[in-house]
Formats: sequence, C-alpha cells, structure tokens
Amino acid sequence: MKDTMKIYKAHLIFTPERSRFEVMENGYIAVENGRVQAVASNLAQLGATEADVTDFGDCLLIPAMNDMHVHAPQYRNLGLAMDLELLPWLDNYTFPEESKFADTAYAERMYRRFVYDLWRQGTMRAVCFATVHLESTRLLMRLFQEAGMGAWVGKVNMNRNCPEALCESVEDAASGIEALVSEFADKDALVRPIVTPRFVPSCTPDMLRMCGQMAQRYGLPVQSHLSENTGEIAWVRELEPESRSYGDAYNRYGLFGQTPTIMAHCVWTDGEELELMQRNGVMVAHCPTSNLNLSSGMAPIRTFLEKGIRVGLGSDISAGHSLSLFRTMVYAIQVSKMHFQRDHSKPFLTLSEAFWLATKSAGSFFGQVGSFEPGYEFDALVIDDHDLNHDNYSLAERLERFIYLGDDRQIVRRFCRGREIHLA
Amino acid sequence: MKDTMKIYKAHLIFTPERSRFEVMENGYIAVENGRVQAVASNLAQLGATEADVTDFGDCLLIPAMNDMHVHAPQYRNLGLAMDLELLPWLDNYTFPEESKFADTAYAERMYRRFVYDLWRQGTMRAVCFATVHLESTRLLMRLFQEAGMGAWVGKVNMNRNCPEALCESVEDAASGIEALVSEFADKDALVRPIVTPRFVPSCTPDMLRMCGQMAQRYGLPVQSHLSENTGEIAWVRELEPESRSYGDAYNRYGLFGQTPTIMAHCVWTDGEELELMQRNGVMVAHCPTSNLNLSSGMAPIRTFLEKGIRVGLGSDISAGHSLSLFRTMVYAIQVSKMHFQRDHSKPFLTLSEAFWLATKSAGSFFGQVGSFEPGYEFDALVIDDHDLNHDNYSLAERLERFIYLGDDRQIVRRFCRGREIHLA
Repeated sequence: MKDTMKIYKAHLIFTPERSRFEVMENGYIAVENGRVQAVASNLAQLGATEADVTDFGDCLLIPAMNDMHVHAPQYRNLGLAMDLELLPWLDNYTFPEESKFADTAYAERMYRRFVYDLWRQGTMRAVCFATVHLESTRLLMRLFQEAGMGAWVGKVNMNRNCPEALCESVEDAASGIEALVSEFADKDALVRPIVTPRFVPSCTPDMLRMCGQMAQRYGLPVQSHLSENTGEIAWVRELEPESRSYGDAYNRYGLFGQTPTIMAHCVWTDGEELELMQRNGVMVAHCPTSNLNLSSGMAPIRTFLEKGIRVGLGSDISAGHSLSLFRTMVYAIQVSKMHFQRDHSKPFLTLSEAFWLATKSAGSFFGQVGSFEPGYEFDALVIDDHDLNHDNYSLAERLERFIYLGDDRQIVRRFCRGREIHLA
Repeated sequence: MKDTMKIYKAHLIFTPERSRFEVMENGYIAVENGRVQAVASNLAQLGATEADVTDFGDCLLIPAMNDMHVHAPQYRNLGLAMDLELLPWLDNYTFPEESKFADTAYAERMYRRFVYDLWRQGTMRAVCFATVHLESTRLLMRLFQEAGMGAWVGKVNMNRNCPEALCESVEDAASGIEALVSEFADKDALVRPIVTPRFVPSCTPDMLRMCGQMAQRYGLPVQSHLSENTGEIAWVRELEPESRSYGDAYNRYGLFGQTPTIMAHCVWTDGEELELMQRNGVMVAHCPTSNLNLSSGMAPIRTFLEKGIRVGLGSDISAGHSLSLFRTMVYAIQVSKMHFQRDHSKPFLTLSEAFWLATKSAGSFFGQVGSFEPGYEFDALVIDDHDLNHDNYSLAERLERFIYLGDDRQIVRRFCRGREIHLA
C-alpha cells in the first residue's frame, strides 16, 4: 500500500444508483489524493493490513451533503417571520438584512456562523447566493477556503425592483464578476465563483445579457431562481413579453444551460419550459422546505427524474428554516407524497432516491462528488448513532432513523476532498 | 406570601387567545397547589421579595406540550419503513411490533424509553394508545405515574381485521376496561384510562357498543381514529352501511361526544360528519406529520377552528416520525400553507395559532392546562436558547427560532402540575 493512501473502516452506505442503497457492513474504503481508490469488504483486496486502518467502529460512513441553493446572508433570519407572505417578507426581512452586508465586519460575523453551521449539519459543498457586495462575497469565499469546504459562490447581480442600497450598475456588476474570476482563477479549487442574476424581475435585459456574456467568456456556471410561484411567473411574463416561458427569458440571454446551470425551485415548470430544461441540461435545485414555508406549491420532481433532468436539494435558507439536508430529504419525500396523494401516476420519492438527490445527483454539479465509487472525491460523514440504535436495527434502518430522527449530534467526523474538516 | 407558594422569574410567553402571544419580559409567575396563582411584572404585586424567587435568568418560560394522539408501543418503529404505504406498513411493522407487548419485560423496556423521550421533548401530557394487552397497558400507566406526567392511556380494543395475536373477545375487552377503571379510580389523578376502540374497521358492532356503554357507565373519555384516508372511509361505508358517515358510525354506539371524545386525523371530514362533530363537541387530534408521511391528505384545520371545533396536535408516532410537538407545530403551519396555496379563503395557521393548538387548546382535554392564566395547572418548560440567540432578537423572535430551529437541547427544565419532573 502507498504511504499516501488512507484506509477507513466503517459500515459504508451510499447510492451508486438512485433506486437502492449500497450497504457494506464493516467495509473498507481506500482514499488517495482526495479520491476514493477502492471500496472492499476485506483488507487483502486493498493490499493493506490492520495497522493502516482508521477504524470508525460501529459508525456509519456516508457521503457528505451538497446544498444546491442557499442564501448565505439570510443566516440571521433563519426561523424568523414565517407568518409573512413573500413580498412583506422580502421587504421587511430579507432586503434589510442583505443591505447590512455592505459592512464587512458584520458580514464576517454572520458568514463565519453560516459556514460553521453548514459544517455542523454535514454539508461539505454548497451553491451559494451572497449579496451584491463584492467585498463581503470575497470574504465568504475566503471563509470557505479557510475551512477547506467546497462552494460555488455568487455575488448577486440585481438592478431593478429592489431597494436602492442593493442596486448596482451593469458595469459594477461586470467588474465584480471579473474581480472574482481573477482572484479565484484555479479551476480545480474547491471554491469558485458562479454567475448569479438574482432572478428576472430584479435584472434588466442589459444586466441579464452581461451575465450571460460573462458566463460564456469565463466558462462560469450560472444559478438563479425559476418558476417559484404563480405571481412571479405572471410578473416575468409582463417584464419579458417576448419570452415563451420564464425559462426562455434566461435562455435568450445565454443563462439557461449554455454553461452549467442550476435553477432553484421550478415548482411550476411544465410544457415548453420543461422541454427547454431537458434539452439544455439545466439542473434543478429542489427546495421543498422553502416551498412549504412560502406556500409556493409542489415541484414535479418525479417528472424531472423521468425526463432525465438532474435534481439536487437546497435548504434555501431563510425561506427554508434549516441548513440540514437530512431534514430537507424528509421534506422532499413528504412533498412527493402529497403529490402522489393527488396523482397516483407519480410515485413518491423513496429514501434512497432522496439520499441520492442530496449526494450523488447534487454532487455532479461539483465534478465526481457524492458517492464512494472509485474516482469520486472523498466527501464523507461519520455517523455515530448509538443513541438512536437501542434495538436490533439493520444498517439500512439505522440510516433511515438517523435521517428522520437524527441531527448534528450524530455527525462526529466530516471529510471534504479527502481531508478531515475541523471547525469550532 | 404563603410558604407553599413558589415564584419563578423568566421571560413568560403563552397564548391566552389563539391570535397572539402574551409576552412578559422578566415576568414573575406564582404557583400554589400546582396551579398558577398570578402572573406579574413585579414582585410587589405578588407580595413577595427577591428571596422567594427562583430566577431562570434570560430563559423563556412557556407552557409545556400536550400530545393528543400517540401510539406508545410504536416507539421502536420511529423513523422506520417510511417507503411503505399504509397496509404493508401495518402488516409488516405496526402489528408485529404491537404483538410483542404481550411480553411485559419488552413492554417495560420500550415504554420507559417512550416516556423518557416524551419528557425529553417537553411533552408533559399525552393521550396515548397502548396495545390490547392489559398488563403492559397498566405498566405504561404506572410509568407515567412514576414520572409525574399526565396521560389518558387507552388499552386498545379490537376484534376484527387484525392479526390473531391482537384480537380479543368483547368480554375480555370489557373486563380490561373495568380493571383499569378500578385501579386508576381517582378522577383528579394525572394518569387515567380512556376508552379506545382502535377504529371502526377493527371493531365489530358488539365491540363498539360495549365501548360506548363503558364510556357512559364510568364517565370515561373516548379516543379513536376518524376519516384518515379515502380508502379507509370507503371501507367503513361497507362495514357500517347504515351510518350516514364514518363519524356517525361512532355516534350510533355512543362514541362520538356522549363523553369527552377526541378523534385523530379527520383529514376528510366534511358535510354531515363535520356538523355532527360540531354539534357533539368532538375534539380533533391533528397529526400533520403523520398525514404527510402516509400521504393521507390535508386536514381542514381552519374550517374546524371557524366552526368552533376544538383541535389539538398529535405526534402520531410512528406514522409521525418525531415526538417533538414543536416539530409538529411547524408541520401544522406548513400543511395549512399548502391548503392556503390551493384555497386562499382558508388563511394558514400563524405561529401563535399553532402554539395555542399544542398548549391551551389541547390542554383543555386535561382540564385547565396549557396556559399561564390564573387557575391553570402549572405545566411549563424552561427554554435556554442562548446558542440560538446570537444577535439582537426579540423575545417573540427567540420563541419562533426555538420552535423552528431548536430541539430538546434548549429545554432545560420541565414542570407538570407544579412539580419539576426529572427523568434520566
């Protein structure tokens, strides 16, 4: 065995395919250069001896979580103002809070807590919205770097239908993107910029056009919001009358799959928009907690999966009220069951499917992330569930109980790209 | 001040009315003989001095939780088999597990964990289903007594459409009820028996008739399941063709408000059944988590409230996956928002409404329980939320964040009927 290789022993559970868990009792996983070399049921297969092994005993070892849609600056507002509807919530909570991020000292205080809490909940990669502020966005990226965690981070672009303090010119938006591209230039780095027009209603055509150009010039991915609620869709129809759908409005500006693209929500996506997503390979960040809290509706996840559209899960704080992707999996299953209750032709999500959404499916936006197959980056969580495991439960049942009943107390070690991540 | 009086100081939050929180910063609450004597903003009003006060510092003090529908013997199955639909779930998980409670040693091990976990989650009163087994039901009641917590506990009655091992004769069912009535005879005690026909499909007319007679003879309350899903309702129509509704089937046997009655679910209750519930004063145990997990549908809680039908919240483990009533409140709000999204004439539940459902509204089934108004039994939780309170949050915001983000870690002291409850 090579000196640079590490071998971990635990009960391994992961989802190479979405329809089933791969469960290996007392399995071994060999990691080299941040990637899984092999998984084996005995050491001889790995050409190694017990002395080489880090033994996690009776713990479960699972891929770490990937949060595909999260508003970092809304961390303070987690669990607040849930009685409000979308517009007063934006005006009284979200926008005033985001405005505070002009102050980098405030930003540092909140972003440190945010990154810590992501870590605590077992999320090792995230696709984040920051704010329009360049300095604090840079600071968030450096905090992720410092932690050793992975993130696509977007300095938000917006120049209409928003408070003065959060508006910027197209020129400032462009130079902001270029500043981050030049500072975070390493394409293999864990932390990278992503082009982030907030959503069509808050970006003029000039802004959207510039965003599309930047994405293509620098090969940057794109994130935004799509078809979250019916009022928003009607508004986009007014603002972009020539577009055939909300998705088409992005598409016309080169922001819909021309580079890797992830769209949050897609609750009401159907017809031409659905076909365009499928054709352009646009990925969905499904945020069931947020959709429930904001009465948005139920996204047609089974339809997306049937059509081969990629889907990941997003916490969408602070419309979602928890950074835990395990909590989000449960919500994804529950919302799919409500869908199923109305339309029995759409089977609800199984546990392995929800797990796969948050690991291997979501991880594909970061490269080979989210599984323990050879070649995958080793992003992993060690789960010590002895407090939940008071009877003769099977390994699959232990994982299910952890997902439904557990929390950060059972997550005892965390790895990203092969490195153990310690925060405090 | 009398020697027998106790005075606690904390930030008091409770819901005398469902539409708003009563918030008293650094308030005092005087408790005597297990009941609230008075709430005051200064000690002089209570004729007391600082020396008399137990000071909870910056903690919140709130009424404890009341779980209005919970299957105690399903505790082991919490968070299991959520991919199954109702019937295979009953046949492969629920009934086999309940059969184990013929063994009182097994029952003691599981019921101890169950009572401990209720306590841990801040639930001081519960309306419980046990199993058909008299000995283990008695044991559960003694465990509640030993803990000092409040419970209506039902030895389940069932004699058709269930596994042999869980069937009993009407005579055995009747003598079981009488045994518990004579053993737990004190009408003021915290732990009392409740008549518990499982549901119409598992009870013959003879069994239902006997249950109704027992309830009236001994002045016992009644609990059962009602209109949980459409398949079940069609089945009841077949089994009881002369009844005008599922609810009417209970009513014909004296099990629908002839004594205080609580029915779990009521997801599909409308028309005549709704009117009958209203007329007979039948209470609803709303179990939104369970309704989501089993694809049952969305109970029309706003309609119930508008008609003056009393409603409480139930965890309904193990169809629900958490004993936390705080988690259940969030689900109740979210389900009501899905309802609202489809029908804007039914406003969603606000936070104070959900809190009121789990405290004062539910508590009315136990007497004067669930509020801090004078005369109410002092059931309370001390919430130390310093880990969630990292910025300048208001007291109402702190409570909202605890409900949405918190868990048992923030619940640091628990009181039932004036007595502090310690379990371990």
